[in-house]
Amino acid sequence: MTSITPRTFKGTRDFLPEDMYVREQILSTLKSVFRKYGFAPLETPAVEFMEILAGKYGDEADKLLYPLAYKGGKELALRYDLTVPLARVVAMHPHLPKPFKRFQIQPVWRADNPQLKRGRYREFFQCDVDTVGSAEQTADAEIIALMVEAFCELGFDSAEVRLNSRKILSGIIRGVGLNSDDELDICRIVDKLDKIGGEGVRKELLEMYSSRADNVNGLCDILDQRTLGADGLTLIAKAVPENEIFGLGLKEINEVLAILEEMNISKEKVKFDFTLARGLDYYTGPIFEVILPDRPEVGSVAGGGRYDDLVGLFLKESFPAVGTSFGMERIHTLLKDRLETAHQKHFDIDVLVCYFDESTRKNSLGIVRELREAGYRSELYFRADKMKKQFSYADKKNIPLVAICGTDEIEAGIVKIKNMRTGDQESIDKSQLVDSISGLLNKLH
Amino acid sequence: MTSITPRTFKGTRDFLPEDMYVREQILSTLKSVFRKYGFAPLETPAVEFMEILAGKYGDEADKLLYPLAYKGGKELALRYDLTVPLARVVAMHPHLPKPFKRFQIQPVWRADNPQLKRGRYREFFQCDVDTVGSAEQTADAEIIALMVEAFCELGFDSAEVRLNSRKILSGIIRGVGLNSDDELDICRIVDKLDKIGGEGVRKELLEMYSSRADNVNGLCDILDQRTLGADGLTLIAKAVPENEIFGLGLKEINEVLAILEEMNISKEKVKFDFTLARGLDYYTGPIFEVILPDRPEVGSVAGGGRYDDLVGLFLKESFPAVGTSFGMERIHTLLKDRLETAHQKHFDIDVLVCYFDESTRKNSLGIVRELREAGYRSELYFRADKMKKQFSYADKKNIPLVAICGTDEIEAGIVKIKNMRTGDQESIDKSQLVDSISGLLNKLH
Repeated sequence: MTSITPRTFKGTRDFLPEDMYVREQILSTLKSVFRKYGFAPLETPAVEFMEILAGKYGDEADKLLYPLAYKGGKELALRYDLTVPLARVVAMHPHLPKPFKRFQIQPVWRADNPQLKRGRYREFFQCDVDTVGSAEQTADAEIIALMVEAFCELGFDSAEVRLNSRKILSGIIRGVGLNSDDELDICRIVDKLDKIGGEGVRKELLEMYSSRADNVNGLCDILDQRTLGADGLTLIAKAVPENEIFGLGLKEINEVLAILEEMNISKEKVKFDFTLARGLDYYTGPIFEVILPDRPEVGSVAGGGRYDDLVGLFLKESFPAVGTSFGMERIHTLLKDRLETAHQKHFDIDVLVCYFDESTRKNSLGIVRELREAGYRSELYFRADKMKKQFSYADKKNIPLVAICGTDEIEAGIVKIKNMRTGDQESIDKSQLVDSISGLLNKLH
Repeated sequence: MTSITPRTFKGTRDFLPEDMYVREQILSTLKSVFRKYGFAPLETPAVEFMEILAGKYGDEADKLLYPLAYKGGKELALRYDLTVPLARVVAMHPHLPKPFKRFQIQPVWRADNPQLKRGRYREFFQCDVDTVGSAEQTADAEIIALMVEAFCELGFDSAEVRLNSRKILSGIIRGVGLNSDDELDICRIVDKLDKIGGEGVRKELLEMYSSRADNVNGLCDILDQRTLGADGLTLIAKAVPENEIFGLGLKEINEVLAILEEMNISKEKVKFDFTLARGLDYYTGPIFEVILPDRPEVGSVAGGGRYDDLVGLFLKESFPAVGTSFGMERIHTLLKDRLETAHQKHFDIDVLVCYFDESTRKNSLGIVRELREAGYRSELYFRADKMKKQFSYADKKNIPLVAICGTDEIEAGIVKIKNMRTGDQESIDKSQLVDSISGLLNKLH
């Protein structure tokens, strides 16, 4: 066999045990919140028929689908997101009781130019939570409350939700006399506000709608008055000429805020922001994003909204839906730094039991068994290497405790425990083994 | 948009919440055993370079790789198993301390004809546990002990390990005078013993080696004496003419059995079987399988062995390795029936709180919050439907408890709890809410 250089495709990653530790911390926190809110897990295949995926995300996105060659001539592609598969599942399984509340955490693939420094990969995890089959604002509020709790549980105490409604944006656009046909294009430009600033948005809009400069300026003047929270709501209600969709948007947002208050969610945690636009076309009602005000460079760490028309794609019947997506890669990067300190403390094995020789092996295996039965992650070193080498293995693997039990110790009925962090070594009575290990480990955590 | 029939590619599956429940039970049991034995999680990308995968599994398997079309002209394919990616990871990350003990649970893809009834899919989960970098029999015994414990924990009390060594098979083949170059082909035929019986194996071998009928018959006569356990070991030691590799095999197996005994693993749980062959080419030492003697039709539910040459594929250096693979699909099918009864008891939501009207909503949301804070999975019904409809939703979702709290209940300071299993309804003091729910749920589990 010729020599092949071991490598991975750019934009894909191995998750070594130390990376898995960070990811598992995030996932177990998130899943526990999702379950408490009554969401249940769903998983779908990586491979879907091309016709299921194509044309759902727009032309640009279609180019990012990974087609799969298959001898049967069937046209297949790798999953691009978790929302279209959700729509397919709801269509294929009509027995699922509505509202169907599911979370889904799986990789998706995009044939994009990866920008590893900016956290853009070709294979990356999405983590979605959606309620399908409820048009009520209670469902919207529940998703928002879930985001607030999730980021608290992840330890991002500063996290805040920004809330708007696509209907309010539509109302503003119509109110200033712009064409409602252009709404989606306008929203996509307004969505860049945090990246290119108010002047940048104005410039792009004026280029695009040069014949409607007055209307564009009217819109931008309103956006420039960006004011968060209740004051923003009062301001916008006055600034925009009355129109039907705008009124519906205000009603919707007031309702969501009222429910959040009844839920005891602090007003400081969820702030109305009439400039929030979100990039995706399919939103129809409330939209929201989670940001970290103390880390503005990070952008949003979760976001979503109501999309009442998408889930009906594969059905004659339509299903109102609302959901959010957690930015796993950004959360991972943010938590990695914090857990890196904890990672010094993280270890996959609690106790390494030293190997002396065949005559003492049975006794050592008994120690391993006793520790495992007590729930401690333990292993016998595999062979009779020098003590120094066995300690060095424990060191490299960050195993905090090493149990030493040779002929002398067996005769004396003791086990020596070496604490690799402090270098201390103590002799304990064999009958006290589990208690001693438990005490030492508690001090480490 | 033209109407598209929602469907999945044959051989791939959606895992609905009820399926996820079964899978998560299996995975959480297995992971907890793996961790106790000191194995840490690893995940690798779904997409690998074709040259990494091709030529590693034999010509037949190469045809089963799913190539990925990619504009850059790069040749990519979907992961075929978890062993070659493990070899690549070990080569790319030389800093990983050896022995590297990892578990990995991820889907793999094969462009095969799916046989859904026989549990053969195009996308399916593999669950592998491997120790890389130890040639010691302690490592082999640890993998075997882990399998024994895992199947006990999964509730398969009858599970037994069958143990042999490729070296013993080689020794028998050489001992009866067959050519050692033919060993792999012979092993592949012997591997069919349980499927086609002793006569079937004899027939296939005679067809293949017609000029060596005497030797083939010698081999088959030995196989026909299949005897499990210590008696088998005595029998085979006498039946086979002495040769070097056979001697090494016996030594190896005796060593593994001795360590298992020191580990306190019952002799009834691990039985030597000199007819066990395993299909894969790359085994070099002990091989093993887990079977359920009371369910022979199922075949093996886990299996593996020592493969000392594979992991060095991408390196100049070779790494001895031993590992096992759990048959996730078979275990899933077996457990599903058992959990189906439990599934009557399984639910994703503990308490549904009824929705009356806006005036009582705040109080209801307070109940939901209190329950969630106590760790109970709870939700408010989304809107003011008739009670009958709200109960029916609880029924369909298998939610066991429904909390009812309208104007009358609020005034009286009580909550009514309806037990959906028994139909009983009781009024409890609002201050007793969490205790009462806890008591009712405990009775259900």
